[in-house]
Amino acid sequence: MAPGMALAALKQRIKRPSMLSKLCKPKDLLHHFPNGAYIGWSGFTGVGYPKIMPTFLADHVEENDLQGKLRYTLFVGASAGAETENRWAALNMIERRAPHQVGKNIAKGINEGRIKFFDKHLSMFPVDLVYGFYTKDRPTNKLDVVVVEATDILEDGSIVLGASVGATPELIQLADKIIIEVNTSLPHMEGLHDITMTDLPPNRKPYLIMGVEDRIGKTSVPIDTEKVVGIVHSDYMDQTLPNAPADETSKQIAGHLIEFLEHEVSRGRLPASLLPLQSGIGNIANAVIGGLSDSNFKNLKVWTEVIQDTFLDLFDSGKLDFATATSIRFSPEGFKRFYDNWSDYQGKLLLRSQQVSNSPEIIRRLGVIGMNTPVEVDIYAHANSTCVMGSRMLNGLGGSADFLRSSKYSIMHTPSARPSKTDPTGVSCIVPMCTHVDQTEHDLDVIVTEKGLADVRGLSPKERARVIIEKCAHEDYKPILTSYMDKAEFECLRKGWGHEPHLLYNSFDMHRALEEEGSMKKVKSF
Amino acid sequence: MAPGMALAALKQRIKRPSMLSKLCKPKDLLHHFPNGAYIGWSGFTGVGYPKIMPTFLADHVEENDLQGKLRYTLFVGASAGAETENRWAALNMIERRAPHQVGKNIAKGINEGRIKFFDKHLSMFPVDLVYGFYTKDRPTNKLDVVVVEATDILEDGSIVLGASVGATPELIQLADKIIIEVNTSLPHMEGLHDITMTDLPPNRKPYLIMGVEDRIGKTSVPIDTEKVVGIVHSDYMDQTLPNAPADETSKQIAGHLIEFLEHEVSRGRLPASLLPLQSGIGNIANAVIGGLSDSNFKNLKVWTEVIQDTFLDLFDSGKLDFATATSIRFSPEGFKRFYDNWSDYQGKLLLRSQQVSNSPEIIRRLGVIGMNTPVEVDIYAHANSTCVMGSRMLNGLGGSADFLRSSKYSIMHTPSARPSKTDPTGVSCIVPMCTHVDQTEHDLDVIVTEKGLADVRGLSPKERARVIIEKCAHEDYKPILTSYMDKAEFECLRKGWGHEPHLLYNSFDMHRALEEEGSMKKVKSF
Repeated sequence: MAPGMALAALKQRIKRPSMLSKLCKPKDLLHHFPNGAYIGWSGFTGVGYPKIMPTFLADHVEENDLQGKLRYTLFVGASAGAETENRWAALNMIERRAPHQVGKNIAKGINEGRIKFFDKHLSMFPVDLVYGFYTKDRPTNKLDVVVVEATDILEDGSIVLGASVGATPELIQLADKIIIEVNTSLPHMEGLHDITMTDLPPNRKPYLIMGVEDRIGKTSVPIDTEKVVGIVHSDYMDQTLPNAPADETSKQIAGHLIEFLEHEVSRGRLPASLLPLQSGIGNIANAVIGGLSDSNFKNLKVWTEVIQDTFLDLFDSGKLDFATATSIRFSPEGFKRFYDNWSDYQGKLLLRSQQVSNSPEIIRRLGVIGMNTPVEVDIYAHANSTCVMGSRMLNGLGGSADFLRSSKYSIMHTPSARPSKTDPTGVSCIVPMCTHVDQTEHDLDVIVTEKGLADVRGLSPKERARVIIEKCAHEDYKPILTSYMDKAEFECLRKGWGHEPHLLYNSFDMHRALEEEGSMKKVKSF
Repeated sequence: MAPGMALAALKQRIKRPSMLSKLCKPKDLLHHFPNGAYIGWSGFTGVGYPKIMPTFLADHVEENDLQGKLRYTLFVGASAGAETENRWAALNMIERRAPHQVGKNIAKGINEGRIKFFDKHLSMFPVDLVYGFYTKDRPTNKLDVVVVEATDILEDGSIVLGASVGATPELIQLADKIIIEVNTSLPHMEGLHDITMTDLPPNRKPYLIMGVEDRIGKTSVPIDTEKVVGIVHSDYMDQTLPNAPADETSKQIAGHLIEFLEHEVSRGRLPASLLPLQSGIGNIANAVIGGLSDSNFKNLKVWTEVIQDTFLDLFDSGKLDFATATSIRFSPEGFKRFYDNWSDYQGKLLLRSQQVSNSPEIIRRLGVIGMNTPVEVDIYAHANSTCVMGSRMLNGLGGSADFLRSSKYSIMHTPSARPSKTDPTGVSCIVPMCTHVDQTEHDLDVIVTEKGLADVRGLSPKERARVIIEKCAHEDYKPILTSYMDKAEFECLRKGWGHEPHLLYNSFDMHRALEEEGSMKKVKSF
């Protein structure tokens, strides 16, 4: 875009005249980013994140060989785009990161010890931030500088966010300085968001949401305009990836799940139009939502964290009445479809802060049906959502525990097995004991794999183990897991420890076989 | 009491004349308890439970050698009195039990495989019950018979509960038949309770509680009087045990905690009168509340699950303004003090259902300070609240995870070590990896032992491990845990798995040393 046209486009977006004087170039803002600064970005699951300022800073580090010399504490509601946070990680610019991340280099930095990372329930992270818990050792409890993407700056100085809300309201609440990237490549999005800010106890109030479509906030985020140190122009779209098509395994899982939901309706435990659906990210989640498009359910509603392409199909099938989340993370093609048909979707979608979208208060009240994919599930229905082999961080906890703790139906769906390097089913997703526990046995109601569905509601641990092995395990692992269970039960009952029998010193032997011999099938001890 | 006097006392308590015709003896009700029946009792933490009918049934089994021939599924909000549920367990009368229990025989029955037990978050158990999750394989979703203790039956047929609310409202909602034990040994307790019933989604409403003293319900539990099959007279008090005095270790823990709270106030992260306190059961909890009586804090408020004797001291010290819970579990001496001074305490106390007392909605809104005691905590701040050696059930999860997940401050307090059979500090309460996880690393903010306090807010796992070992571990275990951590860090960083380093196949070696050699100190591998 030519400079003159860009300015004209920008002026359309900046409705508060005094803010025009803050327009500047990224290089004018460099001094706000000294080594060691605490930085916040808008964004969630790779949409709505700032692009210009982070890219400028990365270029600056690269061009001046400053790798390892400009390192920051970086807080974003969840993940940002690969070309920003992942590039920062590659340039050794991240000292500390929370509460979630996506990207090869950032995961590498975390697992090789260069990046200090902690993952926290996404519903709680923004609140703990406002409590000052994550800035408690600083002279003030503020974040030095917060960079946010907006589609518009309104007359009162408030900003309209892009494709996500995430933790942006709280990051802004805690900001010492604010930089706004006004993105003219996005449509005006006013009306898509329902924005609430965070009060501190004892002054917090109920979220008066009784249905997924209820609005309780404003359409824009209030800004203390004196804190705005610069406004930069952006015309880059969110850089998302295409979605993988659902595979056969995922479709089988979706089939079991839909059959289960039909059964619950037939027994009177669910209304005919179900209850609000939450669906995680990934192949299986896509297949489940895709499966619903082909089902007999109608007038569905969605209360979830992230809205993906398959929800557009569900809207277009006429089966979905309303969806709300904290971000819309479409593929490039999905975004095109969404923006081209903006007027169709506009009244059926609402984005809220992650504190609200993932709020246990609302999840319990609405009776959400929560569905997520784990790393592994154990025979007693604990699940690992984060750390492979108990140690290697994938992306972080995300909202999995927000939903799985408080949903009416807490469902984990996973393939029964995954490939190892040498064996197409070398990794069983059903294990004797999870190597890391993010969801406890007290949280999960249903485990489902392509093999079948285990309904563990009201079962004691030993009953649970038998049904999970029988219904969910891959056939190659059924004898192994049954043998573990038989031996554990015998040993523990003998000792009077038989509530939840384990062979404690052999509980990770399947993982050991995987590490040492390339497949969990090679386990020898039971 | 002579029969005539008893009848006069009863008539004072039963204000609905038609209900007097339902007065009967326990033996008249025996036929409502066939083998295999699903039974609910009122009660929570050994108070407010029915005594007459359970004792009659136990006598019946004993006198007629029916052990193992009359077995029931028993649901109580939490634990009942030892002379009822524990005696039932000893007589092999319990087939299935949830969601909590206390008693040597019942724990024995669970750990030897005779009793099927599952523990569930106490906030969720009553809701899942009303959803029909625990009766899903029955012809109807009802409980066959629910036995409740009441102090009064009011004119509208509703009942005034005793010293606990627990899951009683929901048990009554789900009851096919109801038996009421009117206990004339208790004072009239009308006004002590704030009773709410459970709506189903999509018709659930917010809990409009903004302060600990807010009332949102009625003073009595509504009853479908046609379901009442009998009313029996009771004049037995709740059989509670005396409290153990706080020991030196507990006092040191309380000291660290109070210093921490003072620090948070000084940094502006807590108001001078703190925020509502939740305190678990046991020695340390008592010492903490005792310590607050001697502190400079005032105008304190309590939002907790169980109110114990030390809260009476805190009231009497003038420092506590209001307390609310789901049960008051005093010692016999505490109950005497409470009933003798009923008019003093009456306006300062409120009992609610466990769904409300343990509600994450309210706990988050109020910013509760949650404190609990675990079995063990690991170096990454996971905690085990239920299963010794990963397998042996103690009492159940209780409300620990309700509070620790959603509190503003989530605090675990424990002695640094406990005695084994042969070594006074043979069991370290800080371990490399918990053998069972009920609270995750994403839930805990503070770990405190008599040695010191570890504030882990905002720390990455490796930082957390170092501070927990340094501040909280017993000196005999510091070198062992440090060596584990050093070795795990070296091995995992080398493999590029270093986010949360573990020696997976040696992570329970301290437990193995305890089992095989009588003390965790005897560990050899690291």
